[in-house]
Amino acid sequence: MEWLKTPVKAPNVAAIAAAHLRQSQLTKPPGALGELEAVAIRLAGLQGSEQPAVDKVHISVFAADHGVAEEGVSAFPQAVTVQMVHNFLNGGAAINVLARALGATLEIVDVGVKTPITHPKLISQRSGNGTANSALDAAMTSAQLNLALQAGADAAERAHASNAELFIGGEMGIANTTAATAMYCALLDVAILDATGSGTGLDHAGIEHKVNVIRRILNQHRSHFDEPLEVLRRLGGFEIAALTGAYLRAAQLGLPVLVDGFISTAAALIASKVQPSVADWLFLSHTSAEPGHFFAVAALKQRPLLDLNLRLGEGSGAAVAVPLLRLACALHNQMATFAEAAVAGKL
Amino acid sequence: MEWLKTPVKAPNVAAIAAAHLRQSQLTKPPGALGELEAVAIRLAGLQGSEQPAVDKVHISVFAADHGVAEEGVSAFPQAVTVQMVHNFLNGGAAINVLARALGATLEIVDVGVKTPITHPKLISQRSGNGTANSALDAAMTSAQLNLALQAGADAAERAHASNAELFIGGEMGIANTTAATAMYCALLDVAILDATGSGTGLDHAGIEHKVNVIRRILNQHRSHFDEPLEVLRRLGGFEIAALTGAYLRAAQLGLPVLVDGFISTAAALIASKVQPSVADWLFLSHTSAEPGHFFAVAALKQRPLLDLNLRLGEGSGAAVAVPLLRLACALHNQMATFAEAAVAGKL
Repeated sequence: MEWLKTPVKAPNVAAIAAAHLRQSQLTKPPGALGELEAVAIRLAGLQGSEQPAVDKVHISVFAADHGVAEEGVSAFPQAVTVQMVHNFLNGGAAINVLARALGATLEIVDVGVKTPITHPKLISQRSGNGTANSALDAAMTSAQLNLALQAGADAAERAHASNAELFIGGEMGIANTTAATAMYCALLDVAILDATGSGTGLDHAGIEHKVNVIRRILNQHRSHFDEPLEVLRRLGGFEIAALTGAYLRAAQLGLPVLVDGFISTAAALIASKVQPSVADWLFLSHTSAEPGHFFAVAALKQRPLLDLNLRLGEGSGAAVAVPLLRLACALHNQMATFAEAAVAGKL
Repeated sequence: MEWLKTPVKAPNVAAIAAAHLRQSQLTKPPGALGELEAVAIRLAGLQGSEQPAVDKVHISVFAADHGVAEEGVSAFPQAVTVQMVHNFLNGGAAINVLARALGATLEIVDVGVKTPITHPKLISQRSGNGTANSALDAAMTSAQLNLALQAGADAAERAHASNAELFIGGEMGIANTTAATAMYCALLDVAILDATGSGTGLDHAGIEHKVNVIRRILNQHRSHFDEPLEVLRRLGGFEIAALTGAYLRAAQLGLPVLVDGFISTAAALIASKVQPSVADWLFLSHTSAEPGHFFAVAALKQRPLLDLNLRLGEGSGAAVAVPLLRLACALHNQMATFAEAAVAGKL
């Protein structure tokens, strides 16, 4: 897995300076477009162009099952992972609707659902029949981790090869908020009670049980929390590992990433611990309704673009934020300057 | 002005119930799409359709000058109002870029800039050559107020006649954050220091001066703060009055409104004081960077969709939020149900 150490591409400083200058000349008070200005300038630096664009968007949804589901930590049965993969393939899920509305490319990657699926539209790159139960054992072996990281890197390679201007990773995996919450507790030293939420809809007793399972997971693996890839291997899931590989490879290839929510941000955190400058390539799309997300966002030192109480996954929150990036680019590229419009500047 | 009292249309309760039922059947955990679900259900009720749409968007930008500009309360010279109207007419401003990107209809209405403009694309419905200085006198006469309210109502009528599914009002008027801030202080009893911001970019001394001017305005008109239309007439501006008329008439016609930021929300507040059920028809698009907006949002008891530190006006913040409404409708209308996709429900 030597590619993990390939340096992340450096943003183009000249393009950032040119984009800054451009923003200062547009017919609006300085800073009046707030975060949209910052987005356009960042994208300019990442794309190496004074006039960035996010017309071509590539979405890869990684699906996998979790051994820890057998502890009864989800409001939905484990079979829903496979059923939702079929829903993705048939075009009926939220991410399908969003991809169509955005004109984005959408691919579904099976990185290890419990029961293998054969379907002409499915990319099958499996690490196993779901992970092991992390409350009892490491979720995956090193070989499985490497396969999943590679599956994600391959998705980023495909996006890059198709000239995508933005990469979005999504995920599906019943019980994966348990895995991500445990990862946040391990990586950020957050109290379990502060980080644990209802996932797909646990009631109070369900959350209490989930907290106890997460405590068992943390006690099982506590001596390995200072190695991010070991946290991923022991506590994570194949889809979280795939997202980690995708983010790392996208940053190496110079492809900006729009990170989805609670699960995806766990991958973003691991990726940015493997190589801190990965964070330069990540835009956080939204603040998840899961309480633990707050701490992950704080650790990544970025303000998410949206806060709409979303908690679906699949890449849906990132997809919803795509129009903001597109409009930020349109404003940046198309507004008249003070000189062009003969508008007076500040007094 | 009898039309002001025409009752606001009532939302369709059956459509709301049908949309609620539809949401509960879509392949996602209940509530997982957060505010987007609420938006789709509200739109269903307002449009009287289980499957709402916001494809056709009508944007009217109202421009006017403010007598209080002579107190030196803006970082930009008053001439910028007229110059920006030309920029709108030539297609170079932020709202032009956004309207094009959204495929929205955009019209510019002169409701009283200081120097009249003649242009084939400009709708001229002027209440005067700018308002009077509200620090010395009422900003407008009753006749001027009525003309400006009517100009806004006419814009809502045009939008409705063209089968628009959403109305956005925008504004341009140097010094209008002073007018709106004074209105918030008068209507909501907020402390001047808490409500006053930098507008288009005042420095610290400029804000201090603006606070003193607002104090003079409030002292000048204090005995009239319990009558909302008197607050509008004495402290407001022609463009704020036009927005007020537009929101009232849109709600009477059954046309949903996406409210922009700091200035527009002052009009929304007046409109909802004239007829409280106007608020049913208003979506708040974003939280303005101007500090006083917080209190107005709290008074309207709605959570804005975006918080991107925007403070441009022109309707730009509302335009940026349009894709969220469109994606909310797409998800609501196009996602598969649990039954269609053969996905298991909650345990």
